[in-house]
Amino acid sequence: MNDELLQPPKGFKDYLQEEEITRKKILNIIENEFINYGFTPIQTSAVENFEVLSSKFANSEETDVYKEIYFFEDKGGRKLGLRYDLTVPLGRVVASNPKTLLPYKRYEIGLVWRDGPVKTGRYREFTQCDADIVGLENGAAEAELLAMAQTIFKKLDIKFKIEIGNRKILESILKNTGVENDKIRKTMISLDKLKKIGFNKVEEELKQKQIPLQTIKKIENYSNLKGVEALKQLKQTLKDENGLKGLKEIEEVLNYCETLQVQNIEFNPFLARGLDYYTGTVFEIFFTDQPITSSIAAGGRYENLIKNFGGRQLTATGITFGLDVILEGVKKTNTKTIAKVLVIPIKNLNDSIKITQTLRENNISTLIDYNDKGVSKNLEHASKQGIPFAIIVGSNELKEGKIVLRNLNTGEQQIITLQQAIQQLQNLKPNEH
Amino acid sequence: MNDELLQPPKGFKDYLQEEEITRKKILNIIENEFINYGFTPIQTSAVENFEVLSSKFANSEETDVYKEIYFFEDKGGRKLGLRYDLTVPLGRVVASNPKTLLPYKRYEIGLVWRDGPVKTGRYREFTQCDADIVGLENGAAEAELLAMAQTIFKKLDIKFKIEIGNRKILESILKNTGVENDKIRKTMISLDKLKKIGFNKVEEELKQKQIPLQTIKKIENYSNLKGVEALKQLKQTLKDENGLKGLKEIEEVLNYCETLQVQNIEFNPFLARGLDYYTGTVFEIFFTDQPITSSIAAGGRYENLIKNFGGRQLTATGITFGLDVILEGVKKTNTKTIAKVLVIPIKNLNDSIKITQTLRENNISTLIDYNDKGVSKNLEHASKQGIPFAIIVGSNELKEGKIVLRNLNTGEQQIITLQQAIQQLQNLKPNEH
Repeated sequence: MNDELLQPPKGFKDYLQEEEITRKKILNIIENEFINYGFTPIQTSAVENFEVLSSKFANSEETDVYKEIYFFEDKGGRKLGLRYDLTVPLGRVVASNPKTLLPYKRYEIGLVWRDGPVKTGRYREFTQCDADIVGLENGAAEAELLAMAQTIFKKLDIKFKIEIGNRKILESILKNTGVENDKIRKTMISLDKLKKIGFNKVEEELKQKQIPLQTIKKIENYSNLKGVEALKQLKQTLKDENGLKGLKEIEEVLNYCETLQVQNIEFNPFLARGLDYYTGTVFEIFFTDQPITSSIAAGGRYENLIKNFGGRQLTATGITFGLDVILEGVKKTNTKTIAKVLVIPIKNLNDSIKITQTLRENNISTLIDYNDKGVSKNLEHASKQGIPFAIIVGSNELKEGKIVLRNLNTGEQQIITLQQAIQQLQNLKPNEH
Repeated sequence: MNDELLQPPKGFKDYLQEEEITRKKILNIIENEFINYGFTPIQTSAVENFEVLSSKFANSEETDVYKEIYFFEDKGGRKLGLRYDLTVPLGRVVASNPKTLLPYKRYEIGLVWRDGPVKTGRYREFTQCDADIVGLENGAAEAELLAMAQTIFKKLDIKFKIEIGNRKILESILKNTGVENDKIRKTMISLDKLKKIGFNKVEEELKQKQIPLQTIKKIENYSNLKGVEALKQLKQTLKDENGLKGLKEIEEVLNYCETLQVQNIEFNPFLARGLDYYTGTVFEIFFTDQPITSSIAAGGRYENLIKNFGGRQLTATGITFGLDVILEGVKKTNTKTIAKVLVIPIKNLNDSIKITQTLRENNISTLIDYNDKGVSKNLEHASKQGIPFAIIVGSNELKEGKIVLRNLNTGEQQIITLQQAIQQLQNLKPNEH
């Protein structure tokens, strides 16, 4: 088989050894915090009916996600597609389970696929970690998600900033600048790229979408507004019901953020998000000390998705963590295995097997040499793999009910009982693992 | 959107609430044991080049898995497909990383897809949990995997039996009965269905494959052999090199199984496994007290897959746990949430939020009512969800630095400090969770 075929298809990626060990650690921190915040797991089908993925209330044909759907037919001729996010499946599930108790906090961690451009940290298959709160109108919903994100990124030692906006405010601004109602959605999709492609390119797109030049200039003026100052100014400018509602919403969120001590948060009225279903507050979180410009987490409030799927009118707020992007900004471990200890038999395989099994019963990740390779080759092997400890099973020590525990980082050796070794190994801090 | 579209496509499934909580518990037990046995995680691409999935050394066109591949094209016109197992990707990955240190123990947990018949516990999308040992010729490899499976099923309180066979032995038997060399593979594929469809239907298939009636009768005679007796008899019958090698292999595995105290294991010479790549010992594990006939775990040794992908000649042995089938045989939890405690504010939301955050910082899964619903409605809500505890934040208690901890199963209430409550909640056993 030729070398190219030994790699995953273009835009796809294998996570191996050091990289996957680090990835799992990130995943565990995220999932643990989801659980602390009382989110309950679900797993929805990764394959959806194409009609669900492409329904106009999920994402309209103008959006990138729509164009990037992988679709195919099954042997029964059904039109299917790979999901591009975990929010549309949640909408479908809540709509089809009208008895769900509210507020409903669920998390889902799973693969999603988009047949789009590939860059650092951005593949065609990626893992999303989603937490959503369904049926809580209160701005505490957004604030909880952001507080949770803050805890996760602190635990991961990631420097970050949060940008927050509101679709209602942005709509109101666009109306003020003269964008016609039926072009607001299109305009927002272009504005969402502001940060990535700059205003000049956004301007080109808006011209193509036949937004008048005068309007574009007004939009540009607004686009420099940021932070507390922007909020003050918009309170004086925006007078329509929708805009006022948006301002009230974001103020409530920001108040709860203060109670929850969420830091590094800035109001950005032009933050739009590329997905169609958001209707209220939206937010994105970025690295501040990494060259990566993609957001590492993002989310917002969507008030119509569930109703549009035929369910109740239910407000919902969600956040997505992009595991693969986060991985790019986190220091990788330098071990090739998760094993804590290698058991080295010296002509006493059966006893060594029993020792190995006892270690495993005590939740210590253990390897054993079945090939009688001898002490020095085994120690070399363990060092190469980054295994921190070896247990050498010598017959003399064994007679006294003891083994040799060797720390492979320091070279220190102790002749102790297996029970003592187990205690030492169980008390290791995670980073010594 | 019509009701049918609110369900996942045919053969696909959503796992919600009670079901997913139980599923995660099973997953945690499996993954924890993989780690105890020193398997290191990888995650390979779920989408593969179609050529990799359909390569003749992975699975030939005669096999069911080949016929059941979901395939599609990306926007660049590449022919892609969804993986049908995690072994073929492992073969690809090891072949393309020739410097991998051996023995290489890896685990992968992920979705796989097969567009085949649907029945209880058998869907078109399912999660496989795979652990493989690459580069260990010793029969300890198979025995370790079976010992690990035994631990997992004991922890899950599952009654099981292990059937074990060997492809070399089966090949030798088939040669003895007169099956021609080029029909051995085809014959094994039919024989693999013996348990599912019975000998009469297998006979029909074999006739279609032009196996002479006389040979079929001889095969039928062999098919009644089982256990220690079969092994004895085959030792007298099989004389070719391949058959003798197979007998030696399985005896070595069974010896290690004894050392590792693997129980409930029976030799079944006709066990074949539907996948083409196995060449040595194969095994399947079944429920013994459930109507489900599909195997709950299965695996075996494959000696050529990695070489065929262009890598070294490396022997490998693996086991797959079928999470979705296992779930069918395990008692489901009766809670709808993983939360341990609901915080109920009585006109003191800010203090209650701080209490909530402190609980979460102590790894206690906590919900809070933001809607001022009052004590009785909140307690009712908590009971419906199966939340075991409530913390009622009353202003009088708060003045004394205390809260009310209520056990919702017993109705017992204690007025204690938050720190005391945290200690009690942290010391809960998992089943009180």
